[in-house]
Amino acid sequence: MERTTTADVEAADVREAWAVLSPEERLEGFRLLPRDEASDFFLSLTAREQADVLLGMWAGERRAWIRLLPPDDVADVVQEAPEEERDELLALLDDRTRTEVVALLAYAEDDAGGLMSPRFARLRPDMSVDEAISYLRRQTRERLETIYYVYVLDAEQRLLGVVSFRDLFSAPPDKRVRDIMREDVVTIPEEMDQEQVSQIFAEHDFLAMPVVDRERRVKGIVTVDDIVDVVTEEATEDIQKLGGMEALDAPYLEIGFLAMVRKRAGWLSALFLGEMLTATAMGRFEAEIARAVVLALFVPLIISSGGNSGSQASTLVIRALALGEVTLRDWWRVMRREFAAGLALGSILGSIGFLRITIWSAFSTIYGPHWRLVALTVALALVGIVLWGTLVGSLLPFGLRRLGFDPAASSAPFVATLVDVTGLVIYFTVALVVMHGSLL
Amino acid sequence: MERTTTADVEAADVREAWAVLSPEERLEGFRLLPRDEASDFFLSLTAREQADVLLGMWAGERRAWIRLLPPDDVADVVQEAPEEERDELLALLDDRTRTEVVALLAYAEDDAGGLMSPRFARLRPDMSVDEAISYLRRQTRERLETIYYVYVLDAEQRLLGVVSFRDLFSAPPDKRVRDIMREDVVTIPEEMDQEQVSQIFAEHDFLAMPVVDRERRVKGIVTVDDIVDVVTEEATEDIQKLGGMEALDAPYLEIGFLAMVRKRAGWLSALFLGEMLTATAMGRFEAEIARAVVLALFVPLIISSGGNSGSQASTLVIRALALGEVTLRDWWRVMRREFAAGLALGSILGSIGFLRITIWSAFSTIYGPHWRLVALTVALALVGIVLWGTLVGSLLPFGLRRLGFDPAASSAPFVATLVDVTGLVIYFTVALVVMHGSLL
Repeated sequence: MERTTTADVEAADVREAWAVLSPEERLEGFRLLPRDEASDFFLSLTAREQADVLLGMWAGERRAWIRLLPPDDVADVVQEAPEEERDELLALLDDRTRTEVVALLAYAEDDAGGLMSPRFARLRPDMSVDEAISYLRRQTRERLETIYYVYVLDAEQRLLGVVSFRDLFSAPPDKRVRDIMREDVVTIPEEMDQEQVSQIFAEHDFLAMPVVDRERRVKGIVTVDDIVDVVTEEATEDIQKLGGMEALDAPYLEIGFLAMVRKRAGWLSALFLGEMLTATAMGRFEAEIARAVVLALFVPLIISSGGNSGSQASTLVIRALALGEVTLRDWWRVMRREFAAGLALGSILGSIGFLRITIWSAFSTIYGPHWRLVALTVALALVGIVLWGTLVGSLLPFGLRRLGFDPAASSAPFVATLVDVTGLVIYFTVALVVMHGSLL
Repeated sequence: MERTTTADVEAADVREAWAVLSPEERLEGFRLLPRDEASDFFLSLTAREQADVLLGMWAGERRAWIRLLPPDDVADVVQEAPEEERDELLALLDDRTRTEVVALLAYAEDDAGGLMSPRFARLRPDMSVDEAISYLRRQTRERLETIYYVYVLDAEQRLLGVVSFRDLFSAPPDKRVRDIMREDVVTIPEEMDQEQVSQIFAEHDFLAMPVVDRERRVKGIVTVDDIVDVVTEEATEDIQKLGGMEALDAPYLEIGFLAMVRKRAGWLSALFLGEMLTATAMGRFEAEIARAVVLALFVPLIISSGGNSGSQASTLVIRALALGEVTLRDWWRVMRREFAAGLALGSILGSIGFLRITIWSAFSTIYGPHWRLVALTVALALVGIVLWGTLVGSLLPFGLRRLGFDPAASSAPFVATLVDVTGLVIYFTVALVVMHGSLL
């Protein structure tokens, strides 16, 4: 990133140090910036940071800064502020913006309605291109979110079509808007979840899309720059859940220590309680372990292979579901595919395991006189456990989605825990069958 | 998504069935679409799908479709086509586009240069606003990527400033471009990695940014709609690596079975080979296990707790690094934080483990007469292992980044494997100390 003015270097300095500053220091650094740099910097902050900066200011200063924000951003800031400060912040706005913000606050933060801006450019179908351009020139003064897509509405605010500013600009001046607009507009229902909204944006490369209610009245527009944030945010949530914890919902260095430990301890303790069943399962086979201690040596190897193959399968399916590459109806296709994959992967690991025990036994007596039986037990158990891990890992996300939960909750650690207990049972059962009459 | 015309419904049908169609069926379905629907549909496909469709067509048909694409998209399509088909595809283009595409192909696919379009709107600083608008009207015919940001260049194509079309549109007609342009332009160096480019877009909410070389000459622009794809693609790669496999680089249902198994088997086998060290480590303690079989019962519980806490820590740090929330220089801060977190989490799990063994022993004799020592061993080992897992998990991504590798490779399964071996050593060492003279 190259920059030219010296004022800019200061903004860069503040940005650089931002993460490590206390709220007071942030405000202080912010106040040091020249006014025009400060505006850019303020606009580039996250809603949470904007709220923090605003709440540290005195009332008059606050008003100047909050009025810089478009209504959708003000709504985000208000949502980040503590309950008791919200009315005070809303009181700083001019009447029109306040009405818009209050309307936006009625939507859930994760809905299309919570992402949209009510300030979009609009035209009537019977205007000429020339009239349309000068009408738009007047609308520009109202700080529209974008003038690059213009929506053509009837008298009831229902969507008739869309015309890009660029089309308008290159059309003959006396044509009617009706004749150059596109009628097959891709629209977003107001209650659609933001993850789905981002999928629609990924599918069509539009800069903005209109949000409509059931009567096809346009409530606002969602612009692609907000979608970049949504995609990043959703991916972070999924990644953190996949790591076996609650989503932090805040940058790593900014979240409080106790809040972070709480979000991690919950899942970690739940997994620990689940994993305790392995001690119970092992207890069932205590007599067998006492007779053939060699069996115990392979327990970590066996259960981790089940966990790892389950982790691969669940990660693949969770991401494919999140991107819409796979839907609930595909579960049977996915299962057949994963059955074959699990069998192939299990055979590979089983062969490696068999070879390893065979080769070691050629040079040492560590696995005792019955090493062939040990090798066979480990190999067969690996095929069974990898297949089982793969199936559980791939089907669990479907099951969670079907029950209305987030598939990302079937994280690697969660799948591993599920598979560990059954993996032990598979392993010792195979051992009982293979070694019956010799070691056991 | 609401749509109005019936032709549209057909495009929706083709899109719906797309994933399950063979290449021939895809082409067939595509040819059934009415021409204008087909164009939209074609443009909404991924580069790989566009390449597949094109390669199935006869030459004349190919030409018509490939010429529909802007140069940056053509470059992506050519990169997706097999080596031997590339020249043939390039030969279909008009001379100017071919020159542009060949220039773009020189950039790595993941660099800013590989993302950019060379067709941007440009102005000279001394034009009046009125002249600028009619000059732009002429440039529009050349299928510019966007007219919404216009770059002001000197005679050597060096960047002087930027003016949004919107500013131009609302400025007095006789002002000079020089007087309304912004000079502090955020630029992207041509060799910057696409993940960093997407971070800059997330920071500044621009629709487009100019890509410049070392002399500040503008080579092209990157638009935000391409960034949505980049963010999604990078997140998918990271998520798949975190699941303990190579990134698939293709949708789950589209990648060939063998290619998928290969990408999974590599890591799975590597992890398996690493995990074999657990058998060696357990072998070292075979005598202790034979004397106190009760120790073996807790092995899965102990090692999985280390793996789970490591997985949480590495996931957090990897994502924070990917988003730029944390940089290499923060490793010491992160380590201090994770040391405290690991100690807290270890104490929680240790307490639960101690309680569980104590309570069970009140009602049964499963853990023998020395259950107090068993409980103490498990509790102390848990504190040590969770702390160790947390530290390894949080520092490994820094180490990988420092050595020039992708931090996302330190996946949950990888960290778990690393921690398992040391976890066993910690557990049995604690046992030797605590149980010395009684059980061992």
